[in-house]
Amino acid sequence: MSDDSATLPRALEVSLGERSYPIHIGPGLLGDPARLTPFLAGRQVMVVTNTAVAPLYLERLKAGLDDGLEVRELVLPDGEATKTFATVERIWDALLEAGFNRRCTLIALGGGVIGDMVGFAAACYQRGVAFIQVPTTLLAQVDSSVGGKTGVNHPLGKNMIGAFWQPRAVLIDTDTLSTLPPRELSAGLAEVIKYGLIRDAGFLAWLEETMPRLRDLDAAALTRAIERSCAIKAEIVAEDETEQGVRALLNLGHTFGHAIEAHQGYGVWLHGEAVGAGMQMAVELSARLGWLDADEVARCRRIIASAGLPLAAPAAMGADDFLARMRLDKKNLDSRMRLILLRSLGDACVHDETPPALLSEFIGAFARR
Amino acid sequence: MSDDSATLPRALEVSLGERSYPIHIGPGLLGDPARLTPFLAGRQVMVVTNTAVAPLYLERLKAGLDDGLEVRELVLPDGEATKTFATVERIWDALLEAGFNRRCTLIALGGGVIGDMVGFAAACYQRGVAFIQVPTTLLAQVDSSVGGKTGVNHPLGKNMIGAFWQPRAVLIDTDTLSTLPPRELSAGLAEVIKYGLIRDAGFLAWLEETMPRLRDLDAAALTRAIERSCAIKAEIVAEDETEQGVRALLNLGHTFGHAIEAHQGYGVWLHGEAVGAGMQMAVELSARLGWLDADEVARCRRIIASAGLPLAAPAAMGADDFLARMRLDKKNLDSRMRLILLRSLGDACVHDETPPALLSEFIGAFARR
Repeated sequence: MSDDSATLPRALEVSLGERSYPIHIGPGLLGDPARLTPFLAGRQVMVVTNTAVAPLYLERLKAGLDDGLEVRELVLPDGEATKTFATVERIWDALLEAGFNRRCTLIALGGGVIGDMVGFAAACYQRGVAFIQVPTTLLAQVDSSVGGKTGVNHPLGKNMIGAFWQPRAVLIDTDTLSTLPPRELSAGLAEVIKYGLIRDAGFLAWLEETMPRLRDLDAAALTRAIERSCAIKAEIVAEDETEQGVRALLNLGHTFGHAIEAHQGYGVWLHGEAVGAGMQMAVELSARLGWLDADEVARCRRIIASAGLPLAAPAAMGADDFLARMRLDKKNLDSRMRLILLRSLGDACVHDETPPALLSEFIGAFARR
Repeated sequence: MSDDSATLPRALEVSLGERSYPIHIGPGLLGDPARLTPFLAGRQVMVVTNTAVAPLYLERLKAGLDDGLEVRELVLPDGEATKTFATVERIWDALLEAGFNRRCTLIALGGGVIGDMVGFAAACYQRGVAFIQVPTTLLAQVDSSVGGKTGVNHPLGKNMIGAFWQPRAVLIDTDTLSTLPPRELSAGLAEVIKYGLIRDAGFLAWLEETMPRLRDLDAAALTRAIERSCAIKAEIVAEDETEQGVRALLNLGHTFGHAIEAHQGYGVWLHGEAVGAGMQMAVELSARLGWLDADEVARCRRIIASAGLPLAAPAAMGADDFLARMRLDKKNLDSRMRLILLRSLGDACVHDETPPALLSEFIGAFARR
């Protein structure tokens, strides 16, 4: 992974039998009817986006929808704090008011919040209708738009209510990153780094050297980072769609990260920022268990920092704040706390044998640094 | 089907590959641990019921749960008007407050409203957890507890939001019918008659002669009616789980019926009452298309009446009231109105070629009778 001129195929596939779907990645895809038309279930189409994305890309997307379709649009408010049931109910209200039937198609145009909510709305509208992901943030492009996890937050936990519901297609127009705020670019890079940490040490090394170009929005570097991230995700999802096993590895840093997001109030930290700090916690806990050495810990620290991500949890969060939230994590089974840790860089594992006292002491020490 | 001493096997199966599950039917099953234990996903169990059923059967059910389980209970208000998102959110709140994880099991103890809501809560809690149906009304026993349709109502349409999510088991204790109000027994008989009309003329004939015993709660007759109904439903669901084809036949009378329920306000007419009147409408429309003769129409009328069900729509409902609601029916695709009609007694079909003018005229005439 050191020569970034090598081109990967531009249409990856998520292989799930009858529910397989393509991921199209590249510049200028947004207004191209050939990328949307084959994936519509019928004539009724509703594009759902938010107030930040609509002025930038809604018209361009609609230009890719053929005449003769019945196209509606719904513009929702922006932000993780809006990822609630009340917002999803607005989507259902709009669909019913428009008289949309089971053969309608929803198009999610926006970041991870829009994608998760629209996917969940599609999963439950009339017990399931078609949807297409058109992610416009790096985080959504490399992670949340692929794999069919949909849902909303609950005051007691992130993504606690949702469904596995696969899109018909994912359309990633890399041009949309030109308008992404730097803070959101960094948040997306957290998930990109995650793929290197859990499954591809070569990709991690490439990221280490390419990070400045990624943050400068170098188109070729970004395309390559997105392609490799989506390829790893597609591979893992195809192996384990509903997270009975290996898919859990995609949650590296997320158990700690979700605790931070919930504790701070959704939207205060971006999801990717919380995952950045959470990954460093997972790296350091892995070192405590003797799996990584000090040099590797320092290297992870440099990579995460170079992406512009936080390395520490909020100062006011103590061990108990973390543990109370972490007990509700979806990965836990019965009373065991399950964490994703690293056996080595590029090789993650599910671990549920961290002694509770060690975990508590580790978090306390980490938080007080 | 004229000798009701013949015994059918008491554990039917819904055959859906890895998601296959048994339907246990008989007296005295409620407190039997052998009927529940094998179907629990883990130690955490939440029994969800309502204020009408809890005093009658909650303790009996709990006696069938082994010591050592972490059992919680949630008692919701009663009635179709409670089948809303707000009520499902109460289930999720209770699960999160109890710290229940992905290996928990929900048990739905009650009628169709409880079963539909608990199933939907299970489908979406942490993207899907196990649940068991323990239906206590005839309608739930013969219809809604089998087949995995779950969901809630929306002010603009019945069951508009939901999921296909199969239970791990269905446990039908026929003793629970002893406390069922006569009006609810009649409502359940509507769905029993439906199975005869759509798929088994012999069963319809048996029902015609046995109706007085069914309404007198004759245990053997009820058991047989439930078994035959569940067997037909299991067969159809196994053929077409997500209603791409033949499963739509189970909606005989439901398109008209749902319009009545929504127009009157959920809970004013019982679902089965609306289906009773709706089936008679479907029968008479089938006759208008030349598929049934006057004797057959009169026979259906007698059978539906003998179950204690209404034969006419509410006097205040005109053709437009019906048509506006029916356009939102989930079976419709694009602009065609799809109806379930009868080619003959015991043989239903999906029909989307009723001329709109004829349909409108027919409904108007039916409503004014």
